[in-house]
Amino acid sequence: MGQFESKLAEMGVTLPEAPAPAANYVPYVQVGDIVYVSGQISKGDDGLIVGKLGDDMDTAAGAEAAKVCAINLLAQVKAACGGDLDRLVRVVKLGGFVNSTPDFTEQPQVINGASDFIGEALGETGKHARAAVSSPSLPFGVAVEIEGVFQIK
Amino acid sequence: MGQFESKLAEMGVTLPEAPAPAANYVPYVQVGDIVYVSGQISKGDDGLIVGKLGDDMDTAAGAEAAKVCAINLLAQVKAACGGDLDRLVRVVKLGGFVNSTPDFTEQPQVINGASDFIGEALGETGKHARAAVSSPSLPFGVAVEIEGVFQIK
Amino acid sequence: MGQFESKLAEMGVTLPEAPAPAANYVPYVQVGDIVYVSGQISKGDDGLIVGKLGDDMDTAAGAEAAKVCAINLLAQVKAACGGDLDRLVRVVKLGGFVNSTPDFTEQPQVINGASDFIGEALGETGKHARAAVSSPSLPFGVAVEIEGVFQIK
Repeated sequence: MGQFESKLAEMGVTLPEAPAPAANYVPYVQVGDIVYVSGQISKGDDGLIVGKLGDDMDTAAGAEAAKVCAINLLAQVKAACGGDLDRLVRVVKLGGFVNSTPDFTEQPQVINGASDFIGEALGETGKHARAAVSSPSLPFGVAVEIEGVFQIK
Repeated sequence: MGQFESKLAEMGVTLPEAPAPAANYVPYVQVGDIVYVSGQISKGDDGLIVGKLGDDMDTAAGAEAAKVCAINLLAQVKAACGGDLDRLVRVVKLGGFVNSTPDFTEQPQVINGASDFIGEALGETGKHARAAVSSPSLPFGVAVEIEGVFQIK
Repeated sequence: MGQFESKLAEMGVTLPEAPAPAANYVPYVQVGDIVYVSGQISKGDDGLIVGKLGDDMDTAAGAEAAKVCAINLLAQVKAACGGDLDRLVRVVKLGGFVNSTPDFTEQPQVINGASDFIGEALGETGKHARAAVSSPSLPFGVAVEIEGVFQIK
């Protein structure tokens, strides 16, 4: 087990099999050393994490959903690395979408669930640019969807 | 006519003149072999396709609007290729925005209208990463807007 | 003072210190000659510019908020350039999110506040690809958030 997966194990996280997309596209595309990963939704071991921030889900639960998205992103990156996550050079950019009501304003705190997890797991390699916005709704009613750009070697 | 445009013709699709943007920016920017295409809205031969999913437009009509966005994206890519679409190496990533109500959850099925069209037209070259989310509203009230990243040679 | 900052001064704009992000991520990441800048919100000298287009803010005020986002993006690019904005080769892509009601349809006119400012300040260097969509809400209730991709030397 590589350095990053060892750290994840220490944090109690095992990467799932990279979830397959629900449609006619692919989970990631590599161009040169850059990997574009499709938007990953908050779907964990126990199924979809659905909810709307500002309505039936609070910010802490939203951050937990964002962490699940980050785990799914790393699972895809691991697949892109042929199974060796230590080939990850840099988390370049995350684009986070929060399923929320029109008066919800804590998008950053929700997406921090992903950013903080990645920061703890990957250290300097995990320091990324980011956008965090809301969507009025997301696929299957999930709470969070996050896409990402990664540099690998 | 190149291989990709021949296939498009077989599918009954002729690429329009690349639509000019409505404002002070450009339809695409190339950096190295990567082309970033501006968000293309659902505007076809018969004008704007307006509508809100979950309200006055159903998922099948939304998917048709997404296909129109994909056609407009390919028209821009063809322009970026100096008219020879066969210079397209890979559809890298699509970012799809669906104009919807807060309770609509079939964003993937809508954006499949673009992904399935591109898959049929371009085969392996068309396999792309993707995000599909909702917006509460889109320019001119259109149903779908899709931006894209492409690799050309 | 370089050419671009001289032009900005002529336009009455002084770039602020690059605003730090509000959370556990970084304002920008450079990969090769590409710089990904985190989503910049409409926060100017006088604080946050909050508002919802279609409700309590009109399009002209939204465009002014978008201009402030563009200023903050350029401040980050300047930092990425080690203080010399003339190292900017190209504004590649802007992704603009407008805090709006479900019936607002002037997203392009709002984000033009950023595109027109960048066009005036940077000329050919500023010509960018773009997407302009709505969000039902944005961090801290701000009116506009814009992320960007830039090429530097």
